[in-house]
Amino acid sequence: MQPSAGEIVPPKQQLLLLLARMRESGEELDDGALAREAGALFAQMHEADIADTLEAVPPPQRLAAWRGIPPEMQAEVLMELSGQARPPLLTETAEDSLAALLRRMPAEDVADMLRDVRAAARARLIRLAGLAEDPRLRASLAFPENTVGALMDFDAVTARETDSVGEIRRRLQERGELPGHCDKLYIADGRDRLAGVLPLKRLLLNPPETPVRDVMVGENLYFFRPEDGVEKAAGAFERYDLISAPVLDEGNKIAGRITVDEILEHMQESRGRGLLNSAGVDGEEDLFASLPRRFGNRWRWLFVNFWAVLVISLVVGVFEDAIMRVVALASLMPVVAGMSGNAGNQTATLTVRALALDQISGLNWRAVVRGELLLALTNGLVWGGAVGGFAFWIYGRWDLSAVLVASMAVCFLAAAAAGFFFPLLMKKLGKDPALGASVVLTSAVDTLGFLVFLGLGALFL
Amino acid sequence: MQPSAGEIVPPKQQLLLLLARMRESGEELDDGALAREAGALFAQMHEADIADTLEAVPPPQRLAAWRGIPPEMQAEVLMELSGQARPPLLTETAEDSLAALLRRMPAEDVADMLRDVRAAARARLIRLAGLAEDPRLRASLAFPENTVGALMDFDAVTARETDSVGEIRRRLQERGELPGHCDKLYIADGRDRLAGVLPLKRLLLNPPETPVRDVMVGENLYFFRPEDGVEKAAGAFERYDLISAPVLDEGNKIAGRITVDEILEHMQESRGRGLLNSAGVDGEEDLFASLPRRFGNRWRWLFVNFWAVLVISLVVGVFEDAIMRVVALASLMPVVAGMSGNAGNQTATLTVRALALDQISGLNWRAVVRGELLLALTNGLVWGGAVGGFAFWIYGRWDLSAVLVASMAVCFLAAAAAGFFFPLLMKKLGKDPALGASVVLTSAVDTLGFLVFLGLGALFL
Repeated sequence: MQPSAGEIVPPKQQLLLLLARMRESGEELDDGALAREAGALFAQMHEADIADTLEAVPPPQRLAAWRGIPPEMQAEVLMELSGQARPPLLTETAEDSLAALLRRMPAEDVADMLRDVRAAARARLIRLAGLAEDPRLRASLAFPENTVGALMDFDAVTARETDSVGEIRRRLQERGELPGHCDKLYIADGRDRLAGVLPLKRLLLNPPETPVRDVMVGENLYFFRPEDGVEKAAGAFERYDLISAPVLDEGNKIAGRITVDEILEHMQESRGRGLLNSAGVDGEEDLFASLPRRFGNRWRWLFVNFWAVLVISLVVGVFEDAIMRVVALASLMPVVAGMSGNAGNQTATLTVRALALDQISGLNWRAVVRGELLLALTNGLVWGGAVGGFAFWIYGRWDLSAVLVASMAVCFLAAAAAGFFFPLLMKKLGKDPALGASVVLTSAVDTLGFLVFLGLGALFL
Repeated sequence: MQPSAGEIVPPKQQLLLLLARMRESGEELDDGALAREAGALFAQMHEADIADTLEAVPPPQRLAAWRGIPPEMQAEVLMELSGQARPPLLTETAEDSLAALLRRMPAEDVADMLRDVRAAARARLIRLAGLAEDPRLRASLAFPENTVGALMDFDAVTARETDSVGEIRRRLQERGELPGHCDKLYIADGRDRLAGVLPLKRLLLNPPETPVRDVMVGENLYFFRPEDGVEKAAGAFERYDLISAPVLDEGNKIAGRITVDEILEHMQESRGRGLLNSAGVDGEEDLFASLPRRFGNRWRWLFVNFWAVLVISLVVGVFEDAIMRVVALASLMPVVAGMSGNAGNQTATLTVRALALDQISGLNWRAVVRGELLLALTNGLVWGGAVGGFAFWIYGRWDLSAVLVASMAVCFLAAAAAGFFFPLLMKKLGKDPALGASVVLTSAVDTLGFLVFLGLGALFL
């Protein structure tokens, strides 16, 4: 048999085409018909692709398409949907259908789902799904998003130090199935604490009579605590090429495991989020969300920016006399602010990256700052010189050019310092170092640029 | 035995402390002594941690520390080093030692390493390492970075459709070892083409006499071509929870395989790079690189920005008469430019993300643009109104405020349109949609902001 559906062709095009066809042919966009047609398409597709397709369909038709998904796939599709697309579907689904869906999900997914449901409905849903007493669900709910505890699953396959390879193989064959991403078994000692791990391949390659103790890996084990951050876990997975790792409670007993697919998903999401945050967009915005919702998602940083530009405007206002005297100051002030803002952003992003890679410590930060400031001074003088030359060519005043070069040097230095210390400060405060770095930094450096240039201009021209 | 070195404690602190201690105690920073002490530390560490530690050590000592790494670990450490830290070490290592290192590496790593070596030395090194005839190396070198072909390894474990589970198990036991990230065997048909895959767990769970054909997965296989982009592969790995996947040549024969650790590493790197690119820093900058090198790494976007601010400066210069007449224009012009720049950036990052997730197509882009423009108009009027109110409070001129509101509305609309179409254009041109989006977009929107506000001001005030 030849490989068939291997190439990954986005099948959402088909649904979009279907919608376009129905619209063009003047056919009523009847929800029932749409659900039926979409359902036929979905039955062939992977759940991740279905979720993706739903997100590309505008909301009026999205709910109808959702209803077309075969019930046994709905749980998995819900899990694959992005943060903003999921809540509306949950709200529109009847509580008893939702409870039935939850009953089909593993505990960690139920917890993830419940985070998207209004708090009032949460307890009722848990009761309806008959999960009020589930210790796993309780464990998953106990840890906030972005911790290992919230992402861990309860599918760890365990065995005893005292078992033999053959015994374990027989037990697994009786069981008949192994969970996904199971690359190793976790081996417990007499008190249920983690004693080692047994990679699946050692289970396969060793003769049946081998004692587990002789072939398990008992040293340099990588494990996590439920309260560890996902970022830390992602770093370790990348660094040590892990596929799964045990999660241990305080007593070193096995509480669950975390697998590389959760890590990949987290990284895919956070990769987008990093860029979004730096531009001042909160979280994953649904392209088709309602206007008030999207406005709400973006207003926060525009609000910060609003105050920043008001401050800038007031700063410039202070120097109106100087501008009336030398109107060239007005033309040249965006130059200083713009270029030092860009330079500061470069330093900030490099610092954010170095912090993420843990390359900056109490022992070497001085060397880093020295290098960064030296570079800023060089850049300030080089580009200041270029801008100064341009200004001399236009206005023919050497004193104006001198003020320009001096302001550029000062502002590049200040921008580099801000670009270095601002992410550091955010980290010390326990926040994401990249958070709003671009908006806040650009504003601060802009303000300073106007202040320094106009101030020097007012003094010396 | 209890888990020992499980918690991931950055061990680089120890080396940095060692350096600090040597410096303080007035001890000569003797390279030999440093290499010895570092070597003792390194012998206990994972290669990824050693690489990390090296990158936190300033270059004068870095080379000495590098020499302290046990030779059998050097190859792996080289692989783990980041793009900018590696070449200097390669240059400083004698060619015959380097050739000896290459001999120890798998072909795909040799190819990766050779990309960091001057072209002149490349052929000589390949000859010295005795790899001139190696077909695998040739295959790896044939594909550019960031393709599946460059990242694939040659460790695929294959079997035949006609084998039985027991035969395969016996062969594997004779072989005694399995490569890392081997979660499945690739099954070939009579003509060596991929016929299916046999997950390791099925090999473990089924009785020996079972024919492979009965238990292999023969449909919906995920595979890649050597020329596929890594981003596409990363998407599929995340989406379909893959650990390894076969890479097939044009004849559907198995050319190699690609594993999740390469994907994770790529994502970790590209996550940093996305942010860096958007701020106009090229590639991975070594925090301790030389000044000229770092200057070179950043000058390109500063250069772009330089011309942009000159244009802005000329635009403002055109309106110097208007500014002399109404000096408030000078104070308020940064407000319009700053806020619409921020709004445009929000649209741009969302578009970049939507393109990455393949959510925008020829069938729905009109709906997306409509939504984005409506939001921009709302934002422009809301924030324009706020700024207009502020201006009226300061300057008491309703006509000035009206000009402000009108410019904000126009500029927000233009910024949203630019934020949407600029990444789309980059994608159409086959470039990274995020490339320089922030620098170019901010400059363009700034210029427009000044032009519209001052133009309207000159006309109506």
